[in-house]
Amino acid sequence: MKKNIAVIKGDGIGPEIVNEALKVLHVIEKKYNHTFQLTEVLAGGAAIDATGNCLPQESIDQLLASDSVLLGAVGGPKYDSQPPENRPEKALLRIRSTLGLFANMRPAKLYPQLREASPLKDELVDEGIDFVVVRELTGGIYFGKHETWTENGQETAQDIMKYSTAEIRRIAKVAFDTAMVRRKHVTCVDKANVLDTSKLWRRTVREMAKDYPEVTLDFMYVDNAAMQICRKPSQFDVILTENMFGDILSDEASMITGTIGTIPSSSLGETSRGMYEPIHGSAPDIAGQDIADPLGTILSVGMMLKYSFGLEQEAEDIDRAVNAVLNAGYRTPDMMSEGMKKVSCHQMGDLVATEI
Amino acid sequence: MKKNIAVIKGDGIGPEIVNEALKVLHVIEKKYNHTFQLTEVLAGGAAIDATGNCLPQESIDQLLASDSVLLGAVGGPKYDSQPPENRPEKALLRIRSTLGLFANMRPAKLYPQLREASPLKDELVDEGIDFVVVRELTGGIYFGKHETWTENGQETAQDIMKYSTAEIRRIAKVAFDTAMVRRKHVTCVDKANVLDTSKLWRRTVREMAKDYPEVTLDFMYVDNAAMQICRKPSQFDVILTENMFGDILSDEASMITGTIGTIPSSSLGETSRGMYEPIHGSAPDIAGQDIADPLGTILSVGMMLKYSFGLEQEAEDIDRAVNAVLNAGYRTPDMMSEGMKKVSCHQMGDLVATEI
Ligand SMILES: CC(C)[C@H](C(=O)O)[C@@H](O)C(=O)O
Ligand SMILES: CC(C)[C@H](C(=O)O)[C@@H](O)C(=O)O
Repeated sequence: MKKNIAVIKGDGIGPEIVNEALKVLHVIEKKYNHTFQLTEVLAGGAAIDATGNCLPQESIDQLLASDSVLLGAVGGPKYDSQPPENRPEKALLRIRSTLGLFANMRPAKLYPQLREASPLKDELVDEGIDFVVVRELTGGIYFGKHETWTENGQETAQDIMKYSTAEIRRIAKVAFDTAMVRRKHVTCVDKANVLDTSKLWRRTVREMAKDYPEVTLDFMYVDNAAMQICRKPSQFDVILTENMFGDILSDEASMITGTIGTIPSSSLGETSRGMYEPIHGSAPDIAGQDIADPLGTILSVGMMLKYSFGLEQEAEDIDRAVNAVLNAGYRTPDMMSEGMKKVSCHQMGDLVATEI
Repeated sequence: MKKNIAVIKGDGIGPEIVNEALKVLHVIEKKYNHTFQLTEVLAGGAAIDATGNCLPQESIDQLLASDSVLLGAVGGPKYDSQPPENRPEKALLRIRSTLGLFANMRPAKLYPQLREASPLKDELVDEGIDFVVVRELTGGIYFGKHETWTENGQETAQDIMKYSTAEIRRIAKVAFDTAMVRRKHVTCVDKANVLDTSKLWRRTVREMAKDYPEVTLDFMYVDNAAMQICRKPSQFDVILTENMFGDILSDEASMITGTIGTIPSSSLGETSRGMYEPIHGSAPDIAGQDIADPLGTILSVGMMLKYSFGLEQEAEDIDRAVNAVLNAGYRTPDMMSEGMKKVSCHQMGDLVATEI
């Protein structure tokens, strides 16, 4: 198989973790005789440094020409003085909307080997944490009109949360389809006791559920969901929710696994072109020290192989290799615990690569 | 002192827990020679049952005529078939806005006696959980325009999140003043990398911080806050945030204490009239069984005495009594653990009353 992969190394620890992920990708390429053509693309802080623009047109063209995108992480305090429109995060939002990546999947999965890292009590962890947050990524209050003006001498601002049934249906379909290959349970999270958009979500999702008679669907208010994720995470299989709620809940969900550095994510649209990235940020405080955890990025490569290129076997190889390395007791500093063997970012990459 | 207290017993377990709180109130009344005149007010499901209307005008008049309001809890599946405008929750929202209760305080405080109930690991709990979420309660997306219409053949809905500097300043003042009598640390939570309202919050709060040179102010994105509350709750003193984020984070914060039944809350406006209620819901599944935890409601009475009536000594009496009863090992079923003495809802009320 021959594929063009756009690679955004990004800022902070981005370059180091992406390098390890590419190491693993090369081994897969060799082992299975694929050709992965890599194009380095500038976006975020690195693009501001090089061109002044957080997402130059050339980058957009490169992304659109790729078969899929691998991203490290963007952003950092260095760019705080940029005008709002040129912040590294804006590049991320613009990529999502330009590539039409409306479906963001963030698995919250606890590796039994790493259970000590979870902030939750052992009893809760032992019930298992293995769910996925399916977050709508190109609509809602992120992309509604934002305005600031003066009214009766008061500065006033507003943001609009907006959804149409078409937007809801396409992301709900992803959630139902995902549930069908998992434990067949969708929890739709909203605030239908207050928001009109949430009421529309409920109606639309309930209507669609008829096409998935095997899937159990329930609804939960977002405030309750924020509680239940700490209280009994084993109750969830697939959480379906809108953009903002998904942002909050997926971060909370990743935290209870205790190993935010190991969690990959995918963002997909109507085509097979996706963007894959670890869910953690650019962690500028530890950048360049070779101590970052590359597993989230390595597993993101696995997701890309599986979901964008249909390479199931290759993806499984990566999953298996990561598990083997963890079983052997290797840990980057973020997930270090007593009796384990501490390794650096690049050593972790080497270990996974060798294991494949 | 003579005060008129409006009492909304509400639905589900509301009446039983309020009865225990009133028991405690009567003891305080006698001990300190006050006169608390109680008026039972219909709101929520009980009001729908009695009058068809979730908040009749008579109730509004009674609330406006009171010196303060004690609420049990409203709502229940029985009212799911009501039109959106007549749901029990709507009564709650209407009371908040009619009484101008813009400042909601929800303490997340772990009783050391109840540490086993927390879902978090002991190491985290032992660092201490003692912060308060100061939530803006009458603005934002809750009270902006909600609309649903058809656009290009698609049902479409939108909700508007709106804030003015005046709204932000008055709630920020509450947070700063609260911090001054606590550990002098305010964390303002927002999504300033996406929302214009959040940017306005940041500017306004940063500007106001100049008047509180002793207070340490920092800003945190809401997704990060949802993580940090599980990861290291001891880092927080006062969390200041807008209505929707406050709804989500205060529920998460209460859950990590493990004893959502024991947490009181206050909602205040420009006057001393406030509304006080436990943060838990109406729990219709256990209603009428005399097993609900009345401590959140009892402690809400304590908050009323302190914040609306300035009766510090009386409020302290209640806090002390609750602590003594917990120290003596008495537990309602929700917080029961090995070796403790299980008591019913009314027994718990008796125990606290006797202790005073
Ligand atoms: C950087 C920010 C705009 C972004 C978001 O809120 O979507 C991030 O938090 C994420 O979740 O990917
Ligand atoms: C019932 C609901 C409208 C309410 C809210 O969201 O404010 C509740 O969740 C709360 O937090 O008091």
